[in-house]
Amino acid sequence: MATLGEIAAVSSARLQGCDAATVVTGVAPLNRAGPGQISFLTQARYRPFLAKTRASAVILSVEDAADCPAPALVADNPQVAYARAAALFEPVAEARSGVHPTAWVHASAQIAVDAWIGPHSTVEAGAVIESGVVVGPNCVVGAGATLGERTRLVAQVTICHRVRLGRRVLVHPGAVIGSDGFGLALDREGRWLKIPQLGGVVIGDDVEIGANTTVDRGALEDTVIEDGVKLDNQIQVGHNVKIGAHSALAGCVGIAGSARIGRHCMLGGGVGVAGHLAIADRVQITGMSLVAQSIAESGVYSSGLAVEPNRAWNKISARLRRLDEMFRRLVALEKKLNRDRST
Amino acid sequence: MATLGEIAAVSSARLQGCDAATVVTGVAPLNRAGPGQISFLTQARYRPFLAKTRASAVILSVEDAADCPAPALVADNPQVAYARAAALFEPVAEARSGVHPTAWVHASAQIAVDAWIGPHSTVEAGAVIESGVVVGPNCVVGAGATLGERTRLVAQVTICHRVRLGRRVLVHPGAVIGSDGFGLALDREGRWLKIPQLGGVVIGDDVEIGANTTVDRGALEDTVIEDGVKLDNQIQVGHNVKIGAHSALAGCVGIAGSARIGRHCMLGGGVGVAGHLAIADRVQITGMSLVAQSIAESGVYSSGLAVEPNRAWNKISARLRRLDEMFRRLVALEKKLNRDRST
Amino acid sequence: MATLGEIAAVSSARLQGCDAATVVTGVAPLNRAGPGQISFLTQARYRPFLAKTRASAVILSVEDAADCPAPALVADNPQVAYARAAALFEPVAEARSGVHPTAWVHASAQIAVDAWIGPHSTVEAGAVIESGVVVGPNCVVGAGATLGERTRLVAQVTICHRVRLGRRVLVHPGAVIGSDGFGLALDREGRWLKIPQLGGVVIGDDVEIGANTTVDRGALEDTVIEDGVKLDNQIQVGHNVKIGAHSALAGCVGIAGSARIGRHCMLGGGVGVAGHLAIADRVQITGMSLVAQSIAESGVYSSGLAVEPNRAWNKISARLRRLDEMFRRLVALEKKLNRDRST
Repeated sequence: MATLGEIAAVSSARLQGCDAATVVTGVAPLNRAGPGQISFLTQARYRPFLAKTRASAVILSVEDAADCPAPALVADNPQVAYARAAALFEPVAEARSGVHPTAWVHASAQIAVDAWIGPHSTVEAGAVIESGVVVGPNCVVGAGATLGERTRLVAQVTICHRVRLGRRVLVHPGAVIGSDGFGLALDREGRWLKIPQLGGVVIGDDVEIGANTTVDRGALEDTVIEDGVKLDNQIQVGHNVKIGAHSALAGCVGIAGSARIGRHCMLGGGVGVAGHLAIADRVQITGMSLVAQSIAESGVYSSGLAVEPNRAWNKISARLRRLDEMFRRLVALEKKLNRDRST
Repeated sequence: MATLGEIAAVSSARLQGCDAATVVTGVAPLNRAGPGQISFLTQARYRPFLAKTRASAVILSVEDAADCPAPALVADNPQVAYARAAALFEPVAEARSGVHPTAWVHASAQIAVDAWIGPHSTVEAGAVIESGVVVGPNCVVGAGATLGERTRLVAQVTICHRVRLGRRVLVHPGAVIGSDGFGLALDREGRWLKIPQLGGVVIGDDVEIGANTTVDRGALEDTVIEDGVKLDNQIQVGHNVKIGAHSALAGCVGIAGSARIGRHCMLGGGVGVAGHLAIADRVQITGMSLVAQSIAESGVYSSGLAVEPNRAWNKISARLRRLDEMFRRLVALEKKLNRDRST
Repeated sequence: MATLGEIAAVSSARLQGCDAATVVTGVAPLNRAGPGQISFLTQARYRPFLAKTRASAVILSVEDAADCPAPALVADNPQVAYARAAALFEPVAEARSGVHPTAWVHASAQIAVDAWIGPHSTVEAGAVIESGVVVGPNCVVGAGATLGERTRLVAQVTICHRVRLGRRVLVHPGAVIGSDGFGLALDREGRWLKIPQLGGVVIGDDVEIGANTTVDRGALEDTVIEDGVKLDNQIQVGHNVKIGAHSALAGCVGIAGSARIGRHCMLGGGVGVAGHLAIADRVQITGMSLVAQSIAESGVYSSGLAVEPNRAWNKISARLRRLDEMFRRLVALEKKLNRDRST
């Protein structure tokens, strides 16, 4: 529950045709919002719903404000304004501090007095849990790990030994941070010998890590995820990878060992990045592409192929296998034609 | 242990050359089954084993029944008949009800008297656990979540706050339902601001959700998985996705936010579906394909490319990069030839 | 902490210009190592750092030994030697045995006296935990499962009922072994009926299983992973798959049901393998490739396509869709040219 005045204040929006005292109790999309709800216009495909919206107020841009039949909160960046406004309507988790009776905390761990360790969580020797941290139910915090101020592990999260998380890091259920990297040496008989993974993981401030995402510890030095990085669900980050600040990776991305991703990069869903390469700042990779070599220039890159009806695709695929032959036949034709002409 | 008569009854099969009282103690493939075991013929590649099978009885189709040297259970749909018969041989889990002494259940949660909450599981405030539900060991059921009748969380499952599961839903270990969607707004400095994820997840009846699969909660409205949907392992379902009834998705599929999948669809392993698009009913996508645009017609679609020996593939791949040039050279040749002819 | 003499002994290296009594306290890369640290040269890209290294000693090959300014440990296979040496510097986990007070172990489970069951772990009826096994925090070991000598579940691992792990198996957090396979029968109304998954999983000795990797139990017979196999993170192994000894699979690989992978195979990250096929021994598949048919010959195979700038890729992709037309136009040109000539 918030007044339009309060919402305008947190979202840096200007009230237009609004009574600042109007009370709003929830958020809804433009086509569903009713009285008492605030809505927003941040995507073009919702514009048709603006004229008939029944929302109590709409967050939108200067350009759209003129067409708004309802009271408006006009913002320079309506999406950012909406993100800030919506935070007022998040269910407030019961403020808890202390250690739940079913949790187990090693005597040598340091837990800030206002931190919370939830049911069935395990905190190993020497771990440091800073002020305001929330460790949800059924988490494991390994020996010597550090969770910075106001970091939150939602539930079932595993933070392995000596991993360091910054402040306000949000880790979703099932994520594993600091598992061993995939380091193997091949012996004379073709058997794999494990290379001990002695490095750690260092994660900056304001990082978000999605459900069931895995981040491996470094082989010798640390795997590094810089400030403000956002990782979606089911991402795999190999050992010694470095992800630059404010990059965002969509679900199911896989990054092989020692790859370096720049700052402000965006990787689409299912992208694969080979090991030991570097991607420059501000590079975007579209979904299901494979980055097999370093990318030195910012820009948008792709290698995903979109579906065709199966029968057509089978033909394309068969022809593709003869592409080299096709090219050679083309060159032969060109030569023949030039020869014919010259004779 | 079951008699052939009992098996015939549950699987709607007709006995042929069988004594209904014959006792069977287990199930085995045609080429391995021995006396006391029942087998089945549901895939053509097992047909060669039929003539010599030592099984006590075989579930098969009318067409195959004539060639069966053993007693037969003849079924219209042998695969369905087998599925029903095999259920008689599943290890019967000890019937348990109540709350394990090591589980922790919030005082405000409602647990049906015949439900079971296993060791080290956590059930948060206001959760509703209906009749016959089994919550296996080390699960987390979030605040206000609902598990419908006879739903089963196998182990290590996370159901986030306010998520609603229907009846007879089966969730395998490591699955996470209701984690935050990947909603971000970009501010002027290129930093990502989290958009609160205020929606929920609603899952219908008879849904199966594989190990380590993740289903995100909606941004404002709900992510919806309709009745009878089957999700394999390691699938990622983004926020506000809707999956129509009786669709089956194989392992490692990724579905980006707000995509709508129709009813009775089948997605092969590793398929990626882009966001904000719609797939019609009865669409099949073969493995490792990318759906980048809406599909309006039912049918089979593909974009996966199968392996070639690496050397051949490198040539194809190099030629592919010159495909536009190749096309232009082809067109130039055509023009030249027409010009030559007309002169 | 170890002396160079001790390191040489475990790694079968020859000391060159070294005092065997020199004490080393840690490991570091060539360009970072300082006095008191040992380093190694196993990858060509580190060779430039050799001349100026400040390491107390360097593990390297006979070929590189001549250029080493520091004391050297000369090895036939420096990577294997390094793997053995580095093991001396792994943090020694506190030796623990017994059952943690917060763990829950069924009365019928057999736990070796020197095994350890960590906090909040659950061990179900009839499970067998052999000598030297470490079950880390928050794990689940299902009914009748067996963990062979010195096997270690790091944390949050799920071993389902009747799964058998060999000796010295290492399972990383979030892995799930023995979840139901994806077995479904389609009824007349287009609804899916679950086929009971009655088989198990058998895992050999010295296998490593990565974080959040899933291995399904067989439908009737077992899913089998042979000795020495190494699985990276987030791999999906379908039911009845067999992976031959000493194969290594990188992150995010997906293997569909009943596929058989040979011995000494290497699969790159994100590779997909279709069901019911066989891959010979010593096959390598490069990253993000799709194996859609059996591979009978050892060798390297590929189908991954690497990124191009998006604009160039869109052209390629559009041309690709016209590849069949292009081929037919090429053939038509060839015919026309031959006809023109013959006239």
